[in-house]
Amino acid sequence: MAHLEKVFRDPVHDYIHVENQIIYDLINTAEFQRLRRIKQLGTSSYTFHGAEHSRFSHCMGVYHIAKTITDWFTKSYPETWNPEENLVTQCAALLHDVGHGAYSHTFESLFATDHEAMTREIITAPSTEINAVLRKVGPDFPEQVASVISHDYPNPQVVQLISSQIDADRMDYLLRDAYYTGAVYGQFDLTRILRVIAPHEDGIVFRVSGMHAVEDYIVSRYQMYMQVYFHPASRSMEVILQNLLQRAKVLYQLDQEYFAQTSPGLVPFFENRQNLHHYLSLDDGVMNTYFQSWMSNTDDTLSQLASMYINRHLLKSIEFTQDQEQQLDLFSSEAPLLDQLREFVEKEGFDPHYFTGTHNNFDLPYDFYRPNSNKPRTQIEILQKDGSLTELSEVSPIVASLAGTIHGNSRFYFPKVMLKNPEFNQLIRTNL
Amino acid sequence: MAHLEKVFRDPVHDYIHVENQIIYDLINTAEFQRLRRIKQLGTSSYTFHGAEHSRFSHCMGVYHIAKTITDWFTKSYPETWNPEENLVTQCAALLHDVGHGAYSHTFESLFATDHEAMTREIITAPSTEINAVLRKVGPDFPEQVASVISHDYPNPQVVQLISSQIDADRMDYLLRDAYYTGAVYGQFDLTRILRVIAPHEDGIVFRVSGMHAVEDYIVSRYQMYMQVYFHPASRSMEVILQNLLQRAKVLYQLDQEYFAQTSPGLVPFFENRQNLHHYLSLDDGVMNTYFQSWMSNTDDTLSQLASMYINRHLLKSIEFTQDQEQQLDLFSSEAPLLDQLREFVEKEGFDPHYFTGTHNNFDLPYDFYRPNSNKPRTQIEILQKDGSLTELSEVSPIVASLAGTIHGNSRFYFPKVMLKNPEFNQLIRTNL
Amino acid sequence: MAHLEKVFRDPVHDYIHVENQIIYDLINTAEFQRLRRIKQLGTSSYTFHGAEHSRFSHCMGVYHIAKTITDWFTKSYPETWNPEENLVTQCAALLHDVGHGAYSHTFESLFATDHEAMTREIITAPSTEINAVLRKVGPDFPEQVASVISHDYPNPQVVQLISSQIDADRMDYLLRDAYYTGAVYGQFDLTRILRVIAPHEDGIVFRVSGMHAVEDYIVSRYQMYMQVYFHPASRSMEVILQNLLQRAKVLYQLDQEYFAQTSPGLVPFFENRQNLHHYLSLDDGVMNTYFQSWMSNTDDTLSQLASMYINRHLLKSIEFTQDQEQQLDLFSSEAPLLDQLREFVEKEGFDPHYFTGTHNNFDLPYDFYRPNSNKPRTQIEILQKDGSLTELSEVSPIVASLAGTIHGNSRFYFPKVMLKNPEFNQLIRTNL
Amino acid sequence: MAHLEKVFRDPVHDYIHVENQIIYDLINTAEFQRLRRIKQLGTSSYTFHGAEHSRFSHCMGVYHIAKTITDWFTKSYPETWNPEENLVTQCAALLHDVGHGAYSHTFESLFATDHEAMTREIITAPSTEINAVLRKVGPDFPEQVASVISHDYPNPQVVQLISSQIDADRMDYLLRDAYYTGAVYGQFDLTRILRVIAPHEDGIVFRVSGMHAVEDYIVSRYQMYMQVYFHPASRSMEVILQNLLQRAKVLYQLDQEYFAQTSPGLVPFFENRQNLHHYLSLDDGVMNTYFQSWMSNTDDTLSQLASMYINRHLLKSIEFTQDQEQQLDLFSSEAPLLDQLREFVEKEGFDPHYFTGTHNNFDLPYDFYRPNSNKPRTQIEILQKDGSLTELSEVSPIVASLAGTIHGNSRFYFPKVMLKNPEFNQLIRTNL
Repeated sequence: MAHLEKVFRDPVHDYIHVENQIIYDLINTAEFQRLRRIKQLGTSSYTFHGAEHSRFSHCMGVYHIAKTITDWFTKSYPETWNPEENLVTQCAALLHDVGHGAYSHTFESLFATDHEAMTREIITAPSTEINAVLRKVGPDFPEQVASVISHDYPNPQVVQLISSQIDADRMDYLLRDAYYTGAVYGQFDLTRILRVIAPHEDGIVFRVSGMHAVEDYIVSRYQMYMQVYFHPASRSMEVILQNLLQRAKVLYQLDQEYFAQTSPGLVPFFENRQNLHHYLSLDDGVMNTYFQSWMSNTDDTLSQLASMYINRHLLKSIEFTQDQEQQLDLFSSEAPLLDQLREFVEKEGFDPHYFTGTHNNFDLPYDFYRPNSNKPRTQIEILQKDGSLTELSEVSPIVASLAGTIHGNSRFYFPKVMLKNPEFNQLIRTNL
Repeated sequence: MAHLEKVFRDPVHDYIHVENQIIYDLINTAEFQRLRRIKQLGTSSYTFHGAEHSRFSHCMGVYHIAKTITDWFTKSYPETWNPEENLVTQCAALLHDVGHGAYSHTFESLFATDHEAMTREIITAPSTEINAVLRKVGPDFPEQVASVISHDYPNPQVVQLISSQIDADRMDYLLRDAYYTGAVYGQFDLTRILRVIAPHEDGIVFRVSGMHAVEDYIVSRYQMYMQVYFHPASRSMEVILQNLLQRAKVLYQLDQEYFAQTSPGLVPFFENRQNLHHYLSLDDGVMNTYFQSWMSNTDDTLSQLASMYINRHLLKSIEFTQDQEQQLDLFSSEAPLLDQLREFVEKEGFDPHYFTGTHNNFDLPYDFYRPNSNKPRTQIEILQKDGSLTELSEVSPIVASLAGTIHGNSRFYFPKVMLKNPEFNQLIRTNL
Repeated sequence: MAHLEKVFRDPVHDYIHVENQIIYDLINTAEFQRLRRIKQLGTSSYTFHGAEHSRFSHCMGVYHIAKTITDWFTKSYPETWNPEENLVTQCAALLHDVGHGAYSHTFESLFATDHEAMTREIITAPSTEINAVLRKVGPDFPEQVASVISHDYPNPQVVQLISSQIDADRMDYLLRDAYYTGAVYGQFDLTRILRVIAPHEDGIVFRVSGMHAVEDYIVSRYQMYMQVYFHPASRSMEVILQNLLQRAKVLYQLDQEYFAQTSPGLVPFFENRQNLHHYLSLDDGVMNTYFQSWMSNTDDTLSQLASMYINRHLLKSIEFTQDQEQQLDLFSSEAPLLDQLREFVEKEGFDPHYFTGTHNNFDLPYDFYRPNSNKPRTQIEILQKDGSLTELSEVSPIVASLAGTIHGNSRFYFPKVMLKNPEFNQLIRTNL
Repeated sequence: MAHLEKVFRDPVHDYIHVENQIIYDLINTAEFQRLRRIKQLGTSSYTFHGAEHSRFSHCMGVYHIAKTITDWFTKSYPETWNPEENLVTQCAALLHDVGHGAYSHTFESLFATDHEAMTREIITAPSTEINAVLRKVGPDFPEQVASVISHDYPNPQVVQLISSQIDADRMDYLLRDAYYTGAVYGQFDLTRILRVIAPHEDGIVFRVSGMHAVEDYIVSRYQMYMQVYFHPASRSMEVILQNLLQRAKVLYQLDQEYFAQTSPGLVPFFENRQNLHHYLSLDDGVMNTYFQSWMSNTDDTLSQLASMYINRHLLKSIEFTQDQEQQLDLFSSEAPLLDQLREFVEKEGFDPHYFTGTHNNFDLPYDFYRPNSNKPRTQIEILQKDGSLTELSEVSPIVASLAGTIHGNSRFYFPKVMLKNPEFNQLIRTNL
């Protein structure tokens, strides 16, 4: 065998095979190797200690699923699938998350970064190693790969394989996160789905003989959101992280030298002048190193929050509804409930701006196509034996029960010691 | 149920239960949480991308196995096992690796640190949170826990559960590393072993009905060493890491300010004045942050090595034997073989001191007790039905084939580009 | 360890431990060993070739789950669970299916036998080995065990552990059938459920922290019914089996000697004078042996049907609704649709009485308690943190979507050769 | 997709795909379907209750592995593998065990049948359905398939895939038996082996990068023999079965009518005039049906043995060596040891000819090629990177420890009640 054959042992997919030099070269770029230093699940690894896997292994898995599908299409559907799409599909699969940064979600809301824009820039900017590899295929190839990820690629089959309600990305992360957390409910029959998936003129469909496997995938997705991704303890870490970075941003204005010394990589972000290079130099380890420095800062709020994050001292929380958030206390009728709780926290000596927080987690497990929605979803199509297409929730009562309905909750976080405050406790018990 | 019951989802052991407040408090100390930031397998995660788990999850697993065994002994062997040993055994299991630092093996050889001494210090020094928790049990308790780990505890049953050729530590890491790498050969029948393990007056024995499970454990251990722990790619990363730190140590003498700025946590080690606090402040993320800074240092050697490590650009390698290392080249008979190879590397413009290296990995999969050895091993004893004890290799031809024999190899590492040098290549082909 | 300890290797539960002599003696009775000769899934093994496991292994698994629960209750709930219930619960779990016969469902409808009544008789009749073992516990003990299975035992906790919408029986068969068929969708988190199950004054409840595990169990149950238990191919075998036994019953009246020679064990059933002894002497192997004899009978219908069953030559099928069954053909308006199809079959030379059939499979995946129903179900109760109980479907939208709704279909079976008949085909295509 | 595509859910291989009409037609023959009625592991299912799988599922698995290999060879080794061999290889894989009968080993020694000769006859006799299907490929095709199984096919690559020390047959049965018994030690890395297997001019070789996977396969094989296949309880059932059939054979001479009525299928064998048709009409269910009839025979020996077999009342056993078998008792020096034991059994009222027995189980886990042996084995060849071949045990110390050495033991079986006889017990204890 003269051709390239690299094998990666993967606990989820057994072996991942790379037989194309472009793919192999992409894996070896600095921008892709950087994904080893960013955890796939962010703060969830503090709740599910087994789930410390990185975005690197997830991206390898998405590539593997995309390769399996495109190989299968090439062999089985010569009339509806064009094998020239294989490489662009596989590259997009591998690179779809390359713009993710450390603690992306928290970071993005504070510093107005956008991992999707970053992904595009890493792929298309001539300065990156990834761009150089992709250009070997052709001058337009980087742009093509980027357009798949941004849904602008002309062939909807390719776009849907990478990004739809059942795509290579989601299939890998559900299985992988289930494997690493140990959550059996996240498993579904990938082999079956990869056998009934088929290219259609307008996109991707699933033969009816595998309908129940697709249905089970939707349920697995729902279960993973409810039990893993929305876990209150991980969200506590996110609230602490957000408050910590917020505090640092404020303090930076007062003592720029301190932050330039202890956390130089964040300075461009504090000054709102970050570029691609700055973005790529941050990762989980760099951020945690900064936080560890801050633990000995003289500002009590900064040092306490940093210590809480590094040593995993959680804020406690209670669930609340939007109604309750607005709700006036029945007796005093002076202030909305959460404001009252924040007042108690303040009385105990905590700045509520930094030692409390709200966290909302909501998910729409599945939806059919709603043309008038501002973000319409590509619905999952079941290919009947007579060649007609049926939308998934029409044939599955379970999926119908989840379609279009939002699941999740809002939680209010506060210092654990507040549970010893009788009035605070009373307020919670009678109103929440 | 009034008692404490904390549950940790673990992908290897399903669920880990903590029902003792002391154990729970130990887990929540800063020193133990720090283990989340140190990878269990060090550089192996660069070869087996799935194996990114931390020492935290391993320590949880060792605790779980120790708890399972002590609960079983308490129920089944009231005459030979003293339940008062349960807590000290479980604490020692949980804490046995607490002194591990970032990239321990490489680090220790360069900076004369010792993770076993560190473990003892973390447990017995009054300044640590762990010590404070243990003192709640009794003033001597920290010392007792430490003595189990250092093999000085009077009850050999307890010592052997934590440290012997088949102990809670090894059983967890084999299963865990197998799970995360995806290596099926690392699996063995833990349930069976935990059923046939028994306390004996002088230590721990295994009932003969489980002999084959124990035998299979020894084979699994051997396979994991050969296929995972000794993998040439991971060792390449170790050679780079060692050379990188070596170079930094040398450069520190020339430019102390640079290192104080970019890598303050390493300064005490460069100056050979480190203490416990310094040691605990280093972890994988901190080290990688420093290496990332060094990538833009003006010293080419430092920046190149840092870049090779961070971006995973491996040195290539060939196996050699001790004979070959000494061997004179047949034609020139001027210098030993490896020296000649180093010369070629130098001619290509690489400093061989920093861009080559040798790496030896050898393991003794099992040995019976050799009283005259300087580190005699506790042999594995099989309890026959008549009550007599037989050493494992006497009843297992497979174990006998591995007992007392050393497996592994030595490898010489060099820059990949050397493979294009015809003379270098010729020298390798004809001599190795 | 002086006490009994027998270990059974089980692929689903790893190891099953028997520590009570009564349980061990029950396993060794002739009536229980007989379960080895009856397949758990009947004709499904002809569709899922991996699923050839017997009722013996299922009953061992149900015992194991019941033992795990009662051990857990004994340890954790001394105030709400009486340990004196342990043995009766475990015996009932082990024996709950002991009255099952060969191809129970088909057999029962033809010969008016009832496996539940048989279970009771096997347990309470003084002639059985099982009864003799149980009497060693006490004279009333057989009756107590039987009353658990028939829901008459006074303690509802015990009854619900053996028979409710989430009991030891269902939990084992879902996991076991999933393991043997290879159906990943049948898996759920048994460990978690066994941790949150709790005794309550009026029965069994599940702590809210495990609600999603219970929810996932309901979905697994639904998936197994849809994909495994209701598979059209297995039902084809059931139709053939039913028609075969029907034919034999008719022919017996014409040639009693033939059947006395080839299938003596069925004679008492043909003559409607069967007793316990007759019932216990039939099993899958005996029945198949009879069918193999019948393959050379001179009656073409009998021999063909026997051959179809033994050699797995299936009838084909189409789904129909009750409306369609009654429906008059649009053109001829002469006869209901299925009658017309049967006419075509007859024209092709097949007796429609024996070479066609309808098969209905419907399941109610879950229901809440309906006091006015003629078979009200014990609903699944979730124990909230404040001690209150909530019915499962109130907190789970997925379960709500399945609660009270019936799933399944009716199929019409016919000879495969009919698919070549253009008129038959036309009739199917335009109407079904 | 116009071509045939049949999918079989398999718990070991996930899905088995059939894309060739010939293979599908072979599966649907009466002779192949018959394998559903014969357990893969014979009496082992009485020891490992989970292992009730049939030869049918094993044969499907062997076909699947052979198909995976031939597809891989076709794609990757166009120069050394001829794709025209694919079908004959797959047919031979599917049919290699089709001549197995009920309880083959016991049966063959008593009735001089030979399952390998039967396999050949089923394939080549014009009367079988299998032969008719194979003839559709060509008039010589049945003979070709048979010659692969009998090692006479000219291409050694094909022969070795079906029958060698590491072939599709062994790979499936080890994994399958491990899956169904629950024995984790039987697992090995099939995916890896199927990636490094390669055709060579003189047969099949394995690339050195997979050497440890092959080594682990040999260890798994050894473990399965020691722990599963040679289990004393299963062998007890075999001794009972052998004695039972022996007794029936003797009694047949005295009462032919009884056996013609209760066990007509065995009569041709009792009269030593069996043909293919007779052979094919026996299976596990038929045999057990006969044994159940014999339980009420008036001959106490026959009825007791039948009852012991059906109800699993085991004979007990002790291990002995050939030396001990010959050994004279130290005190009486009158008779060899086993004869003395048999005397005691007789004194207790049991006919030692039928209620005792010896059972030898020995295995040679691996051997290299020994040209002078009367059954030389094809050794396992490792393909080095330089293209040279090395025999496996030369590179694996573990395999070397097993190569050429025989493992197993001999056991003497006797009635359980003898353990209460003090003299018998004394004799065992002092001599065995």
